[in-house]
Amino acid sequence: MSKTIAINAGSSSLKWQLYEMPEEVVLAKGLIERIGLKDSVSTVKFGECKESQTLDIADHVQAVKILLDDLIRFELITSYDEITGVGHRVVAGGEAFKASVLIDDEALAKIEELSALAPLHNPANAAGIRAFKELLPDITSVAVFDTAFHTTLNDYAYLYPIPRKYYTDYQIRKYGAHGTSHQYVAQEAAKLLGRPLEELKLITAHIGNGVSITANYHGESKDTSMGFTPLAGPMMGTRSGDIDPAIIPYLIEHAPEFDDAAAVVNMLNKESGLLGVSGISSDMRDIEDGLQKQNPDAVLAYNVFIDRIKKFIGQYLAVLNGADAIVFTAGMGENGWLMRRDVIEGLTWFGMKLDPEKNVFGYTGDISAPDSKVKVLVIPTDEELVIARDVERLKA
Amino acid sequence: MSKTIAINAGSSSLKWQLYEMPEEVVLAKGLIERIGLKDSVSTVKFGECKESQTLDIADHVQAVKILLDDLIRFELITSYDEITGVGHRVVAGGEAFKASVLIDDEALAKIEELSALAPLHNPANAAGIRAFKELLPDITSVAVFDTAFHTTLNDYAYLYPIPRKYYTDYQIRKYGAHGTSHQYVAQEAAKLLGRPLEELKLITAHIGNGVSITANYHGESKDTSMGFTPLAGPMMGTRSGDIDPAIIPYLIEHAPEFDDAAAVVNMLNKESGLLGVSGISSDMRDIEDGLQKQNPDAVLAYNVFIDRIKKFIGQYLAVLNGADAIVFTAGMGENGWLMRRDVIEGLTWFGMKLDPEKNVFGYTGDISAPDSKVKVLVIPTDEELVIARDVERLKA
Repeated sequence: MSKTIAINAGSSSLKWQLYEMPEEVVLAKGLIERIGLKDSVSTVKFGECKESQTLDIADHVQAVKILLDDLIRFELITSYDEITGVGHRVVAGGEAFKASVLIDDEALAKIEELSALAPLHNPANAAGIRAFKELLPDITSVAVFDTAFHTTLNDYAYLYPIPRKYYTDYQIRKYGAHGTSHQYVAQEAAKLLGRPLEELKLITAHIGNGVSITANYHGESKDTSMGFTPLAGPMMGTRSGDIDPAIIPYLIEHAPEFDDAAAVVNMLNKESGLLGVSGISSDMRDIEDGLQKQNPDAVLAYNVFIDRIKKFIGQYLAVLNGADAIVFTAGMGENGWLMRRDVIEGLTWFGMKLDPEKNVFGYTGDISAPDSKVKVLVIPTDEELVIARDVERLKA
Repeated sequence: MSKTIAINAGSSSLKWQLYEMPEEVVLAKGLIERIGLKDSVSTVKFGECKESQTLDIADHVQAVKILLDDLIRFELITSYDEITGVGHRVVAGGEAFKASVLIDDEALAKIEELSALAPLHNPANAAGIRAFKELLPDITSVAVFDTAFHTTLNDYAYLYPIPRKYYTDYQIRKYGAHGTSHQYVAQEAAKLLGRPLEELKLITAHIGNGVSITANYHGESKDTSMGFTPLAGPMMGTRSGDIDPAIIPYLIEHAPEFDDAAAVVNMLNKESGLLGVSGISSDMRDIEDGLQKQNPDAVLAYNVFIDRIKKFIGQYLAVLNGADAIVFTAGMGENGWLMRRDVIEGLTWFGMKLDPEKNVFGYTGDISAPDSKVKVLVIPTDEELVIARDVERLKA
C-alpha cells in the first residue's frame, strides 16, 4: 500500500488530497482554513461523508498534525507509515526549477529565496513543506512548481521589451502560472484526440477565477498569458489583465485614492476584471444571470471578457502557426458553455465550429462539430493528480 | 489657385507641407527645428532644391512668419492670400472629436483642455493653430485628430477591465493613435484590391518608430494596439509596448533608480523596445546590420519584435474573424522586407504567402503570392495628404 498526499498551502489555509498510488484513486480530500486565526475550520471529505470541526489551529505544523490524526480517526490510514509521499504545490519556481524536484535543504532554501517573485505564496508553500518535514521526516517530499511547465518558452517570448539589465539584475521576465493544469489538460487532450502529444499544437485555456492561456507546441509551453505575475493576460474575475502601463502614473497623478504604483496594482488585482466593469460580481455565473435580465453592466463586462479571450486565442494561433485543438478547462472553462459558444462563434474563419448538442453544461470531451478544422475540447483539470504523479515518479 | 498647408507642430518644431489642391500636388515641404532655442534651423525642400537657414526663432508665431516668407522668397506663392487653408495634426481628440473639424474658439479651447491626455503634444498643436490664426486669420483652419479614426471602437474594445469610474471620472480608455495613417492606407488598400472598402476586413500595420496595428472592419477601426497612450501595443523602437503592469511597483521597490511610477514609465517609453533589448539601437536598420553579423543581442531584439507583431496580427484576425489583407506601412513597414518575411512566414496556416520577388526593398503594392488567401500589401502612408484633403473637404 502506497499513499501519497498532495498539498496546496496558503498563508492561512491548507488544501489536501490523499491518493492511493499508483492506482490514482482519491481516498479523501480536505481543507483547513483560518490557520493562525481563531475558529479555524478543518473539513474532510471521503466517500459520501463530509466532516467539519472548528478549533484553534496555531500554525501549519498543527494543521498537518490535525490532518494526519483525522486520517487515522476516519480510518483512512492506520498509521502515519502508510503515507509514503507528499507533493507540495509551489507557486514560484523562477528559473531555478524547470521540473518537479525532491525537496532537500537546498531546494527549500531556494523556494524561500524565490519569495520575492510570489510574496504571498512561496512563504506559505514553504511553511507547508516544513510542517510535513517535521511530522513525517522520512517520506518522499516533492515540490511541484506552477511555473516549471513554462520554462520551455523561448527567450524572445519570455523577455519583456525593456532594458536587459532588468532581467539580469532583477529577474524580470515572463514566468506564467497554472503550469500543472496546462500540462495535464494537454496530455488528456492528446489521449482524447488519439494522437501523440509530440505531434500536436494546442491552445489550452484555463479559465477560472484566474485566467491563463497557453500555446502548447508538441507538448511544450511556448507562450502563456500570465507574466511576471498572475496579473497579466486576459481579463479575469477581479484582475484587469493587460492594460496600458502608462495608466498607472496617470491614476497616481489624478486620482486621490492612489498614493503609489502598489496601490494601483492592488486595484488592478482585486477590484478590476468582471467585478470592476460590471460592478456586480467577479463570478461569471452572476454575470450570466445579469445577461438574462439584460442588465447593461453585465452585458458590457461579458463582452469585454469574450473579446479578451478571443484575442489571446488569436495570438496563440499566430505563435503556433495554427492549432489542432483549443482546450477549455477550470471552473468557467469547464462549465461556461455560453462563454465558449460566444468565443468560438467569433472564430469561424479559423475553421472552428461547435456541436451545439455537446456544448452544454456538464458535457466534457470533444464539443466541436465533426467538420471543425480545429477541435474544441472541454477537459476537467486535475492539478492534485499531477502532483501525486510527480511524487510517484520521483520516489526512489 | 488654391493652396493648402498641412502642419504638424511639436513643442519645438513645426513640420509642414504645401499642396496645390484639389490636384493633391506637393509644391514644397519643410521643417523648422529648435523653436524657442538658440540656432533654430528652417529647412525648405521643393523640386530638386533644399535650402536651410540657421537663425533664432522665439516662438511658433515667428516660425510660421519665417515659413510664409520663405514661401514668397522661393516664389512658391506670390502673396499670403494664395494660401486658402491650413490643416493641423492634433494628437489627442479624446471622445469629443470623432472627425476633423473647422477650428473655432470653442474647438481650440477643447483641444487645449485635452492636454491632460497628451501633455507633450496638444499644447504644441494648439500653439501652431494660434500662430496661423494670428498671421492668416481668414483662411480655413482645420484640426485633424490622430484619435478620431478610432472612435468607432466598440465599448468592449475601448474600455479597460478596471472599475468603470476610472472611465467616467478620468476618461481612461483606449484612444489609439496614427489614425490618419490607418485610414489612408485602408482606403488605398481597397483601391489596390479593386473592392469597396465597405466590404473588406483589413489589418493595417503602421510600423515606424512608433508601431500601431489596427483591425479595420468595412472601413471602420474596430480595435487598435495603442491604448490610453502610445506606449501600449507591440514592441517599438524605444517603447516596450504591453508589459505586465505589476512590473512597475516591483521595479520601484527593488531598483534604486526609480522613485515613482512616472520614472518607470519614462524608461518604458524611452529606453525600452529595440534599443532596450539590443543595447545597440532603436533603429531596425542597425538591428538588421547586427543580424548579418550574427550579433546575439541584435538577433534577440529582432526575434522579440517579430514575435510581438505576429501576436497582434493574430489578435486582430480573431477580432475581425479573418481578413482580406494585411497592410504594412510607415518606415519599417514600407522598407523592412526581412521583418515582413519573418512575420508572414510564421503565419502560413492562415493562408498568407509572400511572393519573394515582390517582397523586396523599394517595391510597393501587393507582395503576396497569387494563391495567398490573405493578401499582403505594402502601401506608403501619407498623413499630410489626409490633412490636406480634410481641409479641402471642410472648406465652405
